[in-house]
Amino acid sequence: MDATDPDRVVIFDTTLRDGEQSPGISLNTGEKLEIAHQLARLGVDVIEAGFPITSPGDFEAVQAIAREVPGPVIAGLARTHVQDIDAAYNAVRDAARARIHTFISTSDIHITHQLQTTREDVKGQARAAVAHARQYVDDVEFSPMDATRAELEFTAEVVCIAIEEGATTINIPDTVGYTMPQEFIAYLGRLYDLVPGLRDVVLSVHCHDDLGLAVANSFSGVMAGCRQVECAVNGIGERAGNASLEEVVMLFRVREDAHGLTTAVNSREIARTSRMISRLTGYAVQPNKAVVGRNAFAHESGIHQDGVLKERTTYEIMDATEVGLESNSIVLGKHSGRHALRDALEQLGFKVEGNALNAAFKRFKEVADRKKQVTALDLEAIVSDEMRERADAHELAWFEVEAGSRREPLARVAVKMPSGEEAVGESSGDGPVDAIFHAIQKASGTECELRQYTVEAVTEGEDALGQVTVMLRTAGRLATGQGVATDILEASARAYVRALSNALEGAAIREAEAATAEAAVERTPGP
Amino acid sequence: MDATDPDRVVIFDTTLRDGEQSPGISLNTGEKLEIAHQLARLGVDVIEAGFPITSPGDFEAVQAIAREVPGPVIAGLARTHVQDIDAAYNAVRDAARARIHTFISTSDIHITHQLQTTREDVKGQARAAVAHARQYVDDVEFSPMDATRAELEFTAEVVCIAIEEGATTINIPDTVGYTMPQEFIAYLGRLYDLVPGLRDVVLSVHCHDDLGLAVANSFSGVMAGCRQVECAVNGIGERAGNASLEEVVMLFRVREDAHGLTTAVNSREIARTSRMISRLTGYAVQPNKAVVGRNAFAHESGIHQDGVLKERTTYEIMDATEVGLESNSIVLGKHSGRHALRDALEQLGFKVEGNALNAAFKRFKEVADRKKQVTALDLEAIVSDEMRERADAHELAWFEVEAGSRREPLARVAVKMPSGEEAVGESSGDGPVDAIFHAIQKASGTECELRQYTVEAVTEGEDALGQVTVMLRTAGRLATGQGVATDILEASARAYVRALSNALEGAAIREAEAATAEAAVERTPGP
Repeated sequence: MDATDPDRVVIFDTTLRDGEQSPGISLNTGEKLEIAHQLARLGVDVIEAGFPITSPGDFEAVQAIAREVPGPVIAGLARTHVQDIDAAYNAVRDAARARIHTFISTSDIHITHQLQTTREDVKGQARAAVAHARQYVDDVEFSPMDATRAELEFTAEVVCIAIEEGATTINIPDTVGYTMPQEFIAYLGRLYDLVPGLRDVVLSVHCHDDLGLAVANSFSGVMAGCRQVECAVNGIGERAGNASLEEVVMLFRVREDAHGLTTAVNSREIARTSRMISRLTGYAVQPNKAVVGRNAFAHESGIHQDGVLKERTTYEIMDATEVGLESNSIVLGKHSGRHALRDALEQLGFKVEGNALNAAFKRFKEVADRKKQVTALDLEAIVSDEMRERADAHELAWFEVEAGSRREPLARVAVKMPSGEEAVGESSGDGPVDAIFHAIQKASGTECELRQYTVEAVTEGEDALGQVTVMLRTAGRLATGQGVATDILEASARAYVRALSNALEGAAIREAEAATAEAAVERTPGP
Repeated sequence: MDATDPDRVVIFDTTLRDGEQSPGISLNTGEKLEIAHQLARLGVDVIEAGFPITSPGDFEAVQAIAREVPGPVIAGLARTHVQDIDAAYNAVRDAARARIHTFISTSDIHITHQLQTTREDVKGQARAAVAHARQYVDDVEFSPMDATRAELEFTAEVVCIAIEEGATTINIPDTVGYTMPQEFIAYLGRLYDLVPGLRDVVLSVHCHDDLGLAVANSFSGVMAGCRQVECAVNGIGERAGNASLEEVVMLFRVREDAHGLTTAVNSREIARTSRMISRLTGYAVQPNKAVVGRNAFAHESGIHQDGVLKERTTYEIMDATEVGLESNSIVLGKHSGRHALRDALEQLGFKVEGNALNAAFKRFKEVADRKKQVTALDLEAIVSDEMRERADAHELAWFEVEAGSRREPLARVAVKMPSGEEAVGESSGDGPVDAIFHAIQKASGTECELRQYTVEAVTEGEDALGQVTVMLRTAGRLATGQGVATDILEASARAYVRALSNALEGAAIREAEAATAEAAVERTPGP
């Protein structure tokens, strides 16, 4: 980070922490690593990689990212407890630049109902936590959670304490998405008045979108003097999510004329990053989503009427190529070899070698047999799909279906169990997908409740790859799985088997966790 | 409208005009009427029902809404041309309260590249248009399109002229989603200085979301003195869409403490309106969308951990029941009769009688045979689906599919043609859906290009109804179709046949239009 440029705004990405806490998202370490590598290519300044105390899986992923992803500062989240901070430190310590981010609520509603303690205790906890974190690292961020609903004077006191103890970034979270642009500017102005030391650290904002104001409030923060914005790709996160990284970044870029502020983000990586997050989390982006929605650019809309688009700027303030939406030139066919595939994947930013390349090549050939052309978008989907395969998981072996409007559907499905043996189940259902899902339950001997089922086309045209996302609940755990195929029934079967596998693996972790009193106490969403 | 309350903000809904211009949306008059009735129940003050000059279908729909939907002001959009204003007037004249909304760009970029004229001509056109509209109605709105990129002084001149000629509402559109909250407040403040007459009319704003600021900019407008906000349900509209009605309304409601402003909207109708718009347009709402997304409320997320939600307000600033998300008590089963169905539909706000009730009952029985319980959400979907059937259209008769991971899929589909005869097609494909789509093309003798294919579950659970949306291009026209069924293949087939039918019908209209020079000149998206 160029700390000397007063117009440079730090982009702090919390896709892997606040974003990943969205219901039903269950990313494994490999997927989180792939996302972190992409965030580094995108050029974010800080990656909040997770909340290490919350689970062994989260700890492992943060540690892997700290060790393997060069470039950005790697941050780990921690409550004010000693164990949280120790876990966060142990997870991020191997990063070239490590940050510990600790938080505690300053609003009375949180202090009373969630923490069930007193303001005095909150001050003490904040002081101890920052001091403890500073023993480990020089880069410590402190957040007074729910600050915008807290008494400003008390929040200022707590912030003073954090700065006294050595916090280098102070982040003001609008945890429940409550504040409004002008109100937030006034709030931060008063905070600067009450806490003179705030001018010696980086002030940050973290805004939620419950009233649709996350980007505007973030921008207001910067107008008030903040130089770090916390955001997430596609705006995912708790409830209505965080400020959208892509909207924040493009606001800085498109309106630099007016405000003079810049970020280090390479906007041409935005479209790819958005697709990756959507695919790996199963969280679709709506067509009218700013910057990354299918219709965000007029040229994507299919309505190229005479006259209107002669001069692009008549109806567009951004160029689609600026966010990486240019039509990609990579196209492979059924005769393309392993070498061509590896080169194409490298151009797309994937380093795939050895067994992974063999597996990707096998899938590529299967897809190329069915599709005339395999495009960059298809390759991204295939590789992401392959990344989801784990040796120890349940896997779809084969399936058969008969269905129609004048008969009951019938499905037979074979599932490869973690033990290696193949189990076959047969079932009817309300429709062929329902029949497949029941057949999988029979084959695996597991009862599940389907919570959500979505299908998206990865690419356009008749022979498009489809991606299915399944969210189900089993063994008390909610989990998602995705599957990609040109056949929607095959994609559905793959997604269901993966969700099942994720849920069962998750359930195992969850039982292990329940043994540690700390983790079992309570769920804290964080700022 | 209570014009005497200075804190009352007029909600102007443009879902049926700017929203309906989103690529691929093709609503018929029946669907538009149903939406308009729901908007009236929601309590919007003004419904912009369409852009009557653009097509005979648009004219017909605006006229039907003006005649049949009581309550809101019904507005029709018109360029400054005489024919536009005449068409708008003839479409809205039968409404109890009719408005003509006319617009012309004041930005040099639009004047030069789109209008290819001069500033003097723009002034003349604005003057003539408002004067002409005022000969017809007392309620005339004028918009200087692309105002936020135009020279403020020139825009002020044009606005002065519009007020001189009798415009009663002046709307400032941020047509390309370019402005920022503080900049917009300053802009409107200067406009008030330059145009003293602005204090005697209603000032309005119309903001687009290209940089994620539509709601914040709309709110800034109100802070600057506007008392009308233009918005669309689910934030649909050109490119990244308009300000989301539900976010604007809930911002007024949740933060009334701070700003004291109110609207007449009944927020409990928000969830249902959002679902209806999503279903009829095929535009999905992303899970992290504020107010109406699946995860917008923590209680929807499936993560009800101890402690956190003991006190709801700890992490929520709105109650889900406030936006109509309370779990609906209506549940029917396979033994429920016609009477029970009609009563349930009435409770849901649908008035269904005679043949429509018979058709709805038949579908209800089919669904009830497959589902244990038919809920309010299912009924909404069934009735919406039935509304899509038209006597003169192509219809799915029956289909059969065999598929699997070890064989090529094979589909046979029968389509009932507009002539009444049944045509059968058979095809293989990349997957069962592809095979069905090709079989439909063969049966109907029409070649289509598939542009988009999405599936959503209408309700939760194993036996959920699925809704499929298909966007295809044929005969030079883009069209969508939706289908609802518990069987995804059946829903896909229904959706494809409807999209095909819509496209062919649209193509017929389009050829008729090409004959009129006026309509063929150019496509103008409007403010």
